[in-house]
Amino acid sequence: MYTLITKKRRGEELTHEEIDFIVRGYTFGEISDAQMAAFLMAVCFNGMTEEELVQFTDSMIITGKVYTLHDELDGVCVDKHSTGGVGDKMTLIDGPIVAACGVYVPKMSGRGLGHTGGTIDKLHAIPGFVTDISHEEFIRTVRSAGLAVMSQTDDLVPADRKIYALRDNTATVESIPLIASSIMSKKLATGADGIVLDVKYGNGAFMKDIGDAEKLGDTCVSLAGRYRRGCTAVLSDMNKPLGRMVGNALEVAEAADFLMGKTASPDVEELSHRLSTAMLMSAGFTEEEAVSREREALASGRAFECLERMVSLQHGDVRCLTDHTLMGTPRYTERFRAGHSGRITAFAAEKTGLSAMYLGAGRRCITDEIDTSAGIEILHTVGDEVREGDDIAILYSSSISDMTKALSLLDEAVTIDRE
Amino acid sequence: MYTLITKKRRGEELTHEEIDFIVRGYTFGEISDAQMAAFLMAVCFNGMTEEELVQFTDSMIITGKVYTLHDELDGVCVDKHSTGGVGDKMTLIDGPIVAACGVYVPKMSGRGLGHTGGTIDKLHAIPGFVTDISHEEFIRTVRSAGLAVMSQTDDLVPADRKIYALRDNTATVESIPLIASSIMSKKLATGADGIVLDVKYGNGAFMKDIGDAEKLGDTCVSLAGRYRRGCTAVLSDMNKPLGRMVGNALEVAEAADFLMGKTASPDVEELSHRLSTAMLMSAGFTEEEAVSREREALASGRAFECLERMVSLQHGDVRCLTDHTLMGTPRYTERFRAGHSGRITAFAAEKTGLSAMYLGAGRRCITDEIDTSAGIEILHTVGDEVREGDDIAILYSSSISDMTKALSLLDEAVTIDRE
Repeated sequence: MYTLITKKRRGEELTHEEIDFIVRGYTFGEISDAQMAAFLMAVCFNGMTEEELVQFTDSMIITGKVYTLHDELDGVCVDKHSTGGVGDKMTLIDGPIVAACGVYVPKMSGRGLGHTGGTIDKLHAIPGFVTDISHEEFIRTVRSAGLAVMSQTDDLVPADRKIYALRDNTATVESIPLIASSIMSKKLATGADGIVLDVKYGNGAFMKDIGDAEKLGDTCVSLAGRYRRGCTAVLSDMNKPLGRMVGNALEVAEAADFLMGKTASPDVEELSHRLSTAMLMSAGFTEEEAVSREREALASGRAFECLERMVSLQHGDVRCLTDHTLMGTPRYTERFRAGHSGRITAFAAEKTGLSAMYLGAGRRCITDEIDTSAGIEILHTVGDEVREGDDIAILYSSSISDMTKALSLLDEAVTIDRE
Repeated sequence: MYTLITKKRRGEELTHEEIDFIVRGYTFGEISDAQMAAFLMAVCFNGMTEEELVQFTDSMIITGKVYTLHDELDGVCVDKHSTGGVGDKMTLIDGPIVAACGVYVPKMSGRGLGHTGGTIDKLHAIPGFVTDISHEEFIRTVRSAGLAVMSQTDDLVPADRKIYALRDNTATVESIPLIASSIMSKKLATGADGIVLDVKYGNGAFMKDIGDAEKLGDTCVSLAGRYRRGCTAVLSDMNKPLGRMVGNALEVAEAADFLMGKTASPDVEELSHRLSTAMLMSAGFTEEEAVSREREALASGRAFECLERMVSLQHGDVRCLTDHTLMGTPRYTERFRAGHSGRITAFAAEKTGLSAMYLGAGRRCITDEIDTSAGIEILHTVGDEVREGDDIAILYSSSISDMTKALSLLDEAVTIDRE
């Protein structure tokens, strides 16, 4: 291992065997955390060649179970991954739309770690909803509802879990090849026919810079290409929160409302369209077919029905989708008001996400419990004119104590220009 | 720690408090090996500013005991450090010369780790010689003999011992600020008035490149300047072994012979002169004074007497210095002969060192026992004309089994040009 760390530090290319030795050795406890941390830091500086990245990803994949969802489902299936954002409920919207168009969407999801919850956390806002389902139940649900969301099992790329935990501890997260291999190993291990990545950039995204987001997208797409899998990267803005709701139950409500054709915010509408089109095209549709099918899926209510069916099959209370109060109402409500009149010129996603986290919508530590009903409802966003005292957002929480911190973070997030 | 690793990775300067937090935190077990390894690798890439290096060294020093040898000895004392080379017996030559000139040379030495032993290992070739002596005995010996060599105690910069072991395991050794802080923390912690560094370059040295050796020397000198200590870096060639002997007892013999005025090889003579002059000048002598005193110390036999007195006070058999056979004779002798006639154009130090290591003169692993009588006697070196079949070197070992490997390494080391 010493020699291999040295090679990477000197910028020399590692062979397939060497990369495999590192990934297996670390996963199975033969290489120490310290040596792996040194190696990963060297990768942060020197990157990986395309060959190294393919082998690194490949070695990670085969440390666990490799699924063949296409064969099991006997149909085209598409997976979607978001690099994470504030108010990002797109899986709950695009999953049902694409499923309603006749393409399977079997999703194995991890837990959210950042300011706001992941898809699994959002679905747990629905009373009864179970994500720890067996593989058989997962397949049955996808067959019947067109989609299902299950928690990632321990046998899905164990190397990634171990390597990610180390990176998260040693400040070696920010490396494009390491991020790409972490995302793609899991997507490739499931055996989906098409993969769509929603790569976010901006202050609320992991990638602050659009150039880095592009590079990550390109890296993932070319990696998928080496596995002969269709993969599309959609870049999307995360400088302000996506849509009107931030928080788990609130986002389920916004997604359900969207699928029922109730008023939708323009950014959700636009991104939903871009993502479903990309997902359908990666399943083999032409752009024209994709657009007309997805319109029809929404207009006919079939997309909403797919969501309903999945919720029902995964033991959730489907009435929540129409009567959102059944997901619980938070004890405390606070209004965030305009301090002066003017036009909103910024609604920083990162600060908004942190504010929601303080309200209980996200985890500060991995062991934190999420308050599914907590969050922020945005009434006015960037571009809106407000007058002094107008409500800009409503904050929900079951704890009064963190309201002050949450309000002050929101105050930092929002800029109102007097001119 | 996460934030501090990130700062270093991004190339930002760390504050005094941050550096101190890292060094103490790691030494006292509050920071994990993995986090420290990631930090050290980031230092390998991004280096350290002068301020960071001073603080890093300072924080390392104060993890242990700080000696005040000048005060204890009530006299000027000079320390010498070599970055390590093949056949490097200079401490056994310059220590006595400088001591004979009235300057104290109190040396706390570490064990040799590379192909050949360190000074401690060489002295252990003398039957009875003890290096694990008490501080009081050390001071008494220096006062009486002018010099003493003791094994580093555990309270001398414990931070360095822990950090060095980690670097040695995680391929983060090759970093000039890390090497400089490792060397200088120990030299500064002893409180010597002057420090002379023998920075070697070439294939048998840690620094292959003369530019790197210069940079390391400059870094150490300016670091010492921050502590108001005189420090001189002497650069010396390590492309071929130093002198005629490689191996522990063999090198003691060569050093004793040199001090007694028996034939000396020109490279040992020249380097000995450069080092003792630098040591004496760092003790306050002018160059002229230094040169005349050191000549006098040799010619009068007083330098040899200092060595004798030290050996005797440290419980070694002084007769060994005149009758080298008392240090034991190796069971097996093998001659390395010229394969064809011509002029020797290369005698690569690195391969020679490895060859000696195979004979038993150095450690492959830290737990290896050294065969003090093993080694190589060089009869012809670079520039010499040889005829086919001439003896070029004699190999000594107590084990016959590694002779073949040692011979073939020596064959790779030596180039004979037919023209």
